[in-house]
Amino acid sequence: MKNIDKTMEKIVALCKGRGFVYPGSDIYGGLANAWDYGPLGVELKNNVKRAWWKKFIQESPYNVGLDAAILMNPKTWVASGHVGGFSDPLMDCKECKARYRADKLIEDFMFEKCEPQVVDGWSDEKMLSFITENNIVCPKCGKKNFTDIRKFNLMFKTFQGVTEDSSSEIFLRPETAQGIFVNFKNVQRTTRKKVPFGIGQVGKSFRNEITPGNFIFRTREFEQMELEFFCKPGEDLEWFAYWKDFCKNWLMSLGVKEENIKMRDHSPEELSHYSNATTDIEFMFPFGWGELWGIADRTDFDLKQHATHSGENFEYTDPVTNEKYVPYCIEPSLGADRVTLAFLVDAYDEEEGEKETRTVLRLHPALSPVKIAVLPLSKKLSDGAMELYGMLSKKYMCDYDDAGSIGKRYRRQDEIGTPFCVTYDFDSLEKGTVTVRDRDTMEQVTLPIDGLDAYFADKFDF
Amino acid sequence: MKNIDKTMEKIVALCKGRGFVYPGSDIYGGLANAWDYGPLGVELKNNVKRAWWKKFIQESPYNVGLDAAILMNPKTWVASGHVGGFSDPLMDCKECKARYRADKLIEDFMFEKCEPQVVDGWSDEKMLSFITENNIVCPKCGKKNFTDIRKFNLMFKTFQGVTEDSSSEIFLRPETAQGIFVNFKNVQRTTRKKVPFGIGQVGKSFRNEITPGNFIFRTREFEQMELEFFCKPGEDLEWFAYWKDFCKNWLMSLGVKEENIKMRDHSPEELSHYSNATTDIEFMFPFGWGELWGIADRTDFDLKQHATHSGENFEYTDPVTNEKYVPYCIEPSLGADRVTLAFLVDAYDEEEGEKETRTVLRLHPALSPVKIAVLPLSKKLSDGAMELYGMLSKKYMCDYDDAGSIGKRYRRQDEIGTPFCVTYDFDSLEKGTVTVRDRDTMEQVTLPIDGLDAYFADKFDF
Repeated sequence: MKNIDKTMEKIVALCKGRGFVYPGSDIYGGLANAWDYGPLGVELKNNVKRAWWKKFIQESPYNVGLDAAILMNPKTWVASGHVGGFSDPLMDCKECKARYRADKLIEDFMFEKCEPQVVDGWSDEKMLSFITENNIVCPKCGKKNFTDIRKFNLMFKTFQGVTEDSSSEIFLRPETAQGIFVNFKNVQRTTRKKVPFGIGQVGKSFRNEITPGNFIFRTREFEQMELEFFCKPGEDLEWFAYWKDFCKNWLMSLGVKEENIKMRDHSPEELSHYSNATTDIEFMFPFGWGELWGIADRTDFDLKQHATHSGENFEYTDPVTNEKYVPYCIEPSLGADRVTLAFLVDAYDEEEGEKETRTVLRLHPALSPVKIAVLPLSKKLSDGAMELYGMLSKKYMCDYDDAGSIGKRYRRQDEIGTPFCVTYDFDSLEKGTVTVRDRDTMEQVTLPIDGLDAYFADKFDF
Repeated sequence: MKNIDKTMEKIVALCKGRGFVYPGSDIYGGLANAWDYGPLGVELKNNVKRAWWKKFIQESPYNVGLDAAILMNPKTWVASGHVGGFSDPLMDCKECKARYRADKLIEDFMFEKCEPQVVDGWSDEKMLSFITENNIVCPKCGKKNFTDIRKFNLMFKTFQGVTEDSSSEIFLRPETAQGIFVNFKNVQRTTRKKVPFGIGQVGKSFRNEITPGNFIFRTREFEQMELEFFCKPGEDLEWFAYWKDFCKNWLMSLGVKEENIKMRDHSPEELSHYSNATTDIEFMFPFGWGELWGIADRTDFDLKQHATHSGENFEYTDPVTNEKYVPYCIEPSLGADRVTLAFLVDAYDEEEGEKETRTVLRLHPALSPVKIAVLPLSKKLSDGAMELYGMLSKKYMCDYDDAGSIGKRYRRQDEIGTPFCVTYDFDSLEKGTVTVRDRDTMEQVTLPIDGLDAYFADKFDF
């Protein structure tokens, strides 16, 4: 495969220019790294979420779905450890007042030196001494005069009800996972599921990140697709391996190139105290390898925490052996915005032609925001072409484009990843045939209109 | 049609018992009227959202989708009027300290007297004198000693970044609509849509309601499905009528009975100052008629407000006549949770049998959380039945149930609205046939397994 120069600038420009992603609150100068999904972006992201739901919930004999509220009883976050420990290590430059996350300061510095360093799990002391020993200076003013590290809790807080005091203080959830844990018994009772089984959820989470960045890679408001899979203690590492494979296969079956992903096991030092094993699936973004999917064996930590704080009994009784245990939990946690960006980057391609470069988004057809574009050869044909558009759009998200030459319209559809263009020409009117052009091969076939249904029937399967 | 006693108690009990809706943060005693959608509820609500998207976005030649962030630049809410005017009229009882919304106090009082009264748009003075004149007392302690009315802003606020002061204060959006208005130019530029066209969005909104209630009818966190349809001034009332019909038809095509909905036009007194016309589609809930869908002709109010506050020019130039104008806007705004409740209530049915009462959710098959239940006649048949389940679940959300008698399993599926049960019996093993039973007619047909694909192909269409 040839190497093309995939830069974030190109991806962002395509997204803004074609309506995938706009800066949030654009007309008011934006809001620190908030992004809005435009007409194509919302279709792409919805397709990503649907593809996740299809494989993780619909087709899975183990798993069921859930949609818990963003606003939860604040005791949840005491039990989960977020009130006590979910914070960023902040440092200020005393000279120019710039504010940094100590871990990111180190990572960026080492990345620049081409000696990438993972800082997850380091203590404040370790970070401070690393900064001193390596003579890391303020990237803004170049001085070396930092404050100590202080902890800043990442949960957004708000007040429910009329008064604004601690009794009415609630938080925007920083993860969807806890909505699943607190519903473990409700779900188990109403579905009568037997362990092993999983509960999956797609929804917004919020983290008051100090340094969001890299487009939709790290944002304060983001969407997660999380599965909590409950199994018998002792069988957890087996299931951990199962879900690691499952996640990787999901990415690859949606077209992600194997060379762009890698599995990174957490070192014992990096591992959370309650975790038996954790692996990140990383993706090769233009800005370097970035975490896409965290897959963690969380043991019985979460259920036991909630048992302690709520007084509920989370023991499960095996219906065959009558054995009692608190299930262990495997958590594959994926960011919907991140993986959407990964699909965009992975699909982005440029093809050198004789006259011009063809930009193509080689998205899996299941993910393409527009499945079929209907292109009338002449504006005189719009009645018939609109009828065709009406017919196809009952099943598929379609686009209707009658502006400019056919070649230009093909290029526009290539650039947004539309797998099929259907040209409606004078033969369509007379003989009832249309030309279907394939995005990737650029080959064209002539088909009867009443054969399109059968032709497209399995083209977008996943 | 016979009259059955559809109470909220029955609906809520079914929802909690079968996994449609649980109280939010249940194990911690909940969080004032927050609700979590369980495995069946999330499917139902997703189907509702998909049905909206299909008709309002996918099949519409006019409309495109959008997914704007919940967190927006706070200037948005100054321009929209929410910072200045989005508040509830609060009163406290000086005797027992109970807190009321003055408008709801009046409405509840008049409802009890069987003289329903709509209070929308009343001034504080009008409400106060109505309360005095009608001798409305505190429903809790029976005394008549209220404070004056004071305004309480309904937006949830939070802080972005490290400091907690007015410069970092932001709000959770109280409606999705403004995310559309601020993106009007971005969408128009990137899609090259010509007026008339619309932008639709589905997403969460938050209102710090003082008196949420009636299950998922009024909650602080809720989901909206809003369309902002932009047209030429002067053509707005025509489009207003178009979308009113469109919305009503959407409900009826999903099976809602006409006798359960009514269109209520706002009186001139009730109408917002900027609105040319507003109609609410109301639904007959067990607790009375409740607003489901607000359809408003908002003129050019919103775009002009944002033009003034942002300095952007929102004028549209007609590509044929070169006429310049700020488009008028028709807004059909629907609550996803509310309409989900309406579908549940509308579908709920009880059928007197000889031995027992059959509870059936007569949901439109497109909305049913489970499309097909696979029921092996004996546990010995599980291999073949699971294979069938695997095949069908590639296309449809399916359930697999092997517990209890077939009759019991039919009843369980009826109660959750599953339109089809496929029984896998010993003939299935030997002859490759299964029995398909219809929820509504209870009729059964025997079909070859390889004929199921064709049989189900158009059964869930909408």
